[in-house]
Amino acid sequence: MSLCDYEPVSLEVIAFDADDTLWHNEPIFHATEAQFAEMLAAYHPADWVRDRLFATEMKNLGHFGYGIKGFILSMIETAIELTEARVTGAEVQKIIAWGHEMLHHPVELLEGVRETVESLAGRYKLMLLTKGDLFDQESKLARSGLGEFFDAVEIVSTKNAATYGAIMRRHAVAPERFVMVGNSLRSDVLPALEAGARAVHIPYALTWAHERLDEEALAGKEFGVVEKISALPEWIRRAEARPTFAGG
Amino acid sequence: MSLCDYEPVSLEVIAFDADDTLWHNEPIFHATEAQFAEMLAAYHPADWVRDRLFATEMKNLGHFGYGIKGFILSMIETAIELTEARVTGAEVQKIIAWGHEMLHHPVELLEGVRETVESLAGRYKLMLLTKGDLFDQESKLARSGLGEFFDAVEIVSTKNAATYGAIMRRHAVAPERFVMVGNSLRSDVLPALEAGARAVHIPYALTWAHERLDEEALAGKEFGVVEKISALPEWIRRAEARPTFAGG
Repeated sequence: MSLCDYEPVSLEVIAFDADDTLWHNEPIFHATEAQFAEMLAAYHPADWVRDRLFATEMKNLGHFGYGIKGFILSMIETAIELTEARVTGAEVQKIIAWGHEMLHHPVELLEGVRETVESLAGRYKLMLLTKGDLFDQESKLARSGLGEFFDAVEIVSTKNAATYGAIMRRHAVAPERFVMVGNSLRSDVLPALEAGARAVHIPYALTWAHERLDEEALAGKEFGVVEKISALPEWIRRAEARPTFAGG
Repeated sequence: MSLCDYEPVSLEVIAFDADDTLWHNEPIFHATEAQFAEMLAAYHPADWVRDRLFATEMKNLGHFGYGIKGFILSMIETAIELTEARVTGAEVQKIIAWGHEMLHHPVELLEGVRETVESLAGRYKLMLLTKGDLFDQESKLARSGLGEFFDAVEIVSTKNAATYGAIMRRHAVAPERFVMVGNSLRSDVLPALEAGARAVHIPYALTWAHERLDEEALAGKEFGVVEKISALPEWIRRAEARPTFAGG
């Protein structure tokens, strides 16, 4: 291995996570959780309600997958459990109504998203790569007005190294020419790196407890961090100028 | 246009619908509906309960998409509506428990499915092409034991001519070399034909009201019908031997 094995590698595919990377999502869940805790305030303190709801969500994740429908069902289950089935039909109705509101919540882009995505489109193959409910994510993409900028949309049920590997193979892109951009260290950064791709982390103010990651898991890893998506093109410019080990 | 413009065209991709084509599905919904009608028997006659549930499902289809989670939520909504919110927490709990049972119901293959799929694998590119809940369909495919036979899996939120067109382009297959096989005239046969592909209908004993189709919509169309999936290889053999108009 000599210096000659190092050369700049240009990127081909830029893949973006959706929720809390392109548009706001976690605050909508957060606000509904607060309403839920308030509804059950007569029975239990808010923190306990939130803890139990999270426990129900985790129990159900393997049955329901991610998304709003599973979240509504988990709220109803938790309400029944925490009231020893004394929850009323009217209260369950209210929970379902919150679910409908969540599903129809306007898609609000994060600052700089439209300009950045637009400026990168055409120069790179842009991919939307998100986990969650297929129907809900397609609906949000359509409402976001960003659909035209993406060359590919991949909605997956879970994001791990195998998922990233399969997607890169399907699109015939070499891992070193693929970069994953997202707000979750656990779903966007770590598994993409494990699959040999590059990754850029854009932290978001709120992170769902399930997406939090023990920092130790990232020891020895190399990835980019930008504060806002508007700094992404500059990160890409630098990444493409920097020599990368190109040996076998 | 002369006889010379007609020539046999061999097939490249055989795409299979999943629910009620490869494995039983509608009977599971049917059985749960019967339990639901029984639960509300004190309030309303069973037929009326079923009609109201179907109406709620149709109202919610544009918000929830297809699948078990949306079905559970529609049952809860209907129970609240039909009891004027007198439904109890214990009853809602029972509905949610039915949902969990549906999600974990064993995947039961239709007769001849495994042998037929296995015999076609390798000779053709096999695709699983189903609509519904991404998470649930992936789980069923994994449990079906058929995963290894499919070269591609496409789970879509809706099946129309545009969906079929996009999938054929993505897989770079000419429409006349693509055949869609399924139990639904509305989702599998008609839109595939509209997209220029071929189609084979395998009727299933039960059809969800939403999947029923006015036969007039099929006037002038040409597609195959086989009684059982085990007759599919013979249909393919004949289809490939029959000259097809190959002109521009």
